[in-house]
Amino acid sequence: MQRYLSRKARGITPYKAGEQPQGSGIIKLNTNENPYPPSPATLDALERFDGARLRLYPPPDGGELRAAAAQAFGLPESHVFCGNGSDEVLGFAFSAFFDDDIVFPDITYSFYPVWAAYYGISYTTVPLCDDFTVPADRMVGKGGVVIANPNAPTGIALPLSGIEQILRLNPDRVVIVDEAYAAFGAQSAVPLIPRYSNLLVTKTLSKSHALAGLRVGIALGQPHLVDGLERIRDSFNSYPVDMLAQHVGAAALLDADYYDAIARRIISTRENTAHALAMLGFSVLPSSANFLFATLPGVSAPQLKAHLEKNHIYVRHFNQPRIKDYLRITIGTDEQMAELLRCIREYKA
Amino acid sequence: MQRYLSRKARGITPYKAGEQPQGSGIIKLNTNENPYPPSPATLDALERFDGARLRLYPPPDGGELRAAAAQAFGLPESHVFCGNGSDEVLGFAFSAFFDDDIVFPDITYSFYPVWAAYYGISYTTVPLCDDFTVPADRMVGKGGVVIANPNAPTGIALPLSGIEQILRLNPDRVVIVDEAYAAFGAQSAVPLIPRYSNLLVTKTLSKSHALAGLRVGIALGQPHLVDGLERIRDSFNSYPVDMLAQHVGAAALLDADYYDAIARRIISTRENTAHALAMLGFSVLPSSANFLFATLPGVSAPQLKAHLEKNHIYVRHFNQPRIKDYLRITIGTDEQMAELLRCIREYKA
Repeated sequence: MQRYLSRKARGITPYKAGEQPQGSGIIKLNTNENPYPPSPATLDALERFDGARLRLYPPPDGGELRAAAAQAFGLPESHVFCGNGSDEVLGFAFSAFFDDDIVFPDITYSFYPVWAAYYGISYTTVPLCDDFTVPADRMVGKGGVVIANPNAPTGIALPLSGIEQILRLNPDRVVIVDEAYAAFGAQSAVPLIPRYSNLLVTKTLSKSHALAGLRVGIALGQPHLVDGLERIRDSFNSYPVDMLAQHVGAAALLDADYYDAIARRIISTRENTAHALAMLGFSVLPSSANFLFATLPGVSAPQLKAHLEKNHIYVRHFNQPRIKDYLRITIGTDEQMAELLRCIREYKA
Repeated sequence: MQRYLSRKARGITPYKAGEQPQGSGIIKLNTNENPYPPSPATLDALERFDGARLRLYPPPDGGELRAAAAQAFGLPESHVFCGNGSDEVLGFAFSAFFDDDIVFPDITYSFYPVWAAYYGISYTTVPLCDDFTVPADRMVGKGGVVIANPNAPTGIALPLSGIEQILRLNPDRVVIVDEAYAAFGAQSAVPLIPRYSNLLVTKTLSKSHALAGLRVGIALGQPHLVDGLERIRDSFNSYPVDMLAQHVGAAALLDADYYDAIARRIISTRENTAHALAMLGFSVLPSSANFLFATLPGVSAPQLKAHLEKNHIYVRHFNQPRIKDYLRITIGTDEQMAELLRCIREYKA
């Protein structure tokens, strides 16, 4: 019944997140979650939290989370904005900095066109090169630029020189670099922030810090960009990050050793899995993320996905031009990837 | 530096929340927090939460929180929407159901005009009656209606017959009834939901459930309205309520005995305080909320506020026509209210 909907609510096509199948025995390789738990120090912070504090509102600016992010990313607190997951932070950024004529790649995080449509921002997509790399020299947007680095769902990273090229090509508009997956092998653009007033970098604790359930996103940029995000936040929801997320997220950001170690483990599993898939005949894109994007010539990706699901293994397929023969496979534990490979071998046999 | 801001970010006037002074020895009566802690069962749920689960995304629809809200408010789960505080839920509702020509009272929650401006929705304010009650017969909006019941910052409740009158006067547009403070004495409109397809009721755990720090808001309405909210949510941030908020919020919603008991205690403190203020010469509006709205003839409200602050007591003043002589005083513990009254007596002497 559309009778009561606003024109906007009627006109939009919402984002479709990956399925969240419940139950034990499932190997969930479809939403790029971390296969390892949050660190002992992170869980300890949760256990020691004094629940009686919850009767008060949280600090609107993120409080200890903001301080921890500043320390972790080597920037002053004035350069840090905290939100309810990087999706919220990105949504705020679209609203704060973009009017019209933005660009992003034709193959990238599929929430970008959804935000653009929701906020009424016109956009053009720039085709990725044939090898699925981002053509930095063509990323020019009169109204702004958004890229994910590494890109999703390809996993391919752009070197810092490419990011810098995009920043120089768009000096008058904001360039958003979405680094949701950067901890798994891309060069972060954070060191460029002091030199580029148009650079906004977004981060999430969902992947690298194994905290998808906590909803913590961070934006990093010069203070005038943080101010812009705060203007939007305070026109929508003044307290987007709850006290528990602030406290537990802060503990995670300050425990780099653990999270660096699990990132290295995931990278190692990724490289072994990529090699094994190649041996099975897959074409695998070079990934700097915690997932692989791969295609097996002559095999229908949806059919292979369905076979895996029958075996309780969930991966993601995007029914979209250029990539409909690919599957995106999150990197799990070594054991989970061995089971995936076993199922693929079984399907081929 | 406005150089990079969108037209929208430049044009808006963000909401200003009450101050959040930190430090011990402060008596914080300025943001309507609950003076009592969350219940033992609520804190127990927090303690028993398995932090390892945080590596996975939360159920997008609120999971156990949605189920608990359905049980607590006596509705099917299809009638429940969960968000990151009732501010987010209200923001989504403005975006989902309103285009233009909405109405709300001239004196009410000051976030309503901020959301209207942010989403580009034109509005008219309806003056409250001279006694600060809502004139139900004049609440007619071609594009929709929003009321807080009890109203803020007056604290005055509209009886259910008035709500029903508003619902009948606006059969073709959504009527939002914001029940942030209803647990402290107003009649809830929830029982009307099965009969009115245009009624959306919003709730928060911030006040009645002493969980302002957790950020849990709920909307209740027929499934087509829940669908509308989900369309907006999924165009902005698919997972707005984190797993901890889902789990702890669910435990709170299922522990009605405790929260009813602290609400009764707050109501009793409110009535005693209202009486004491009246004895001091204040004119006090009849409150059904966890705050009082009061004025002392011949005394400047900002000056009295400043005197209280010198004594580490924070209350709220709204510099706005018709109410600039009033202070909004959150109901704290009996001891806190005694200290407030002592300070007021001192100021008068």
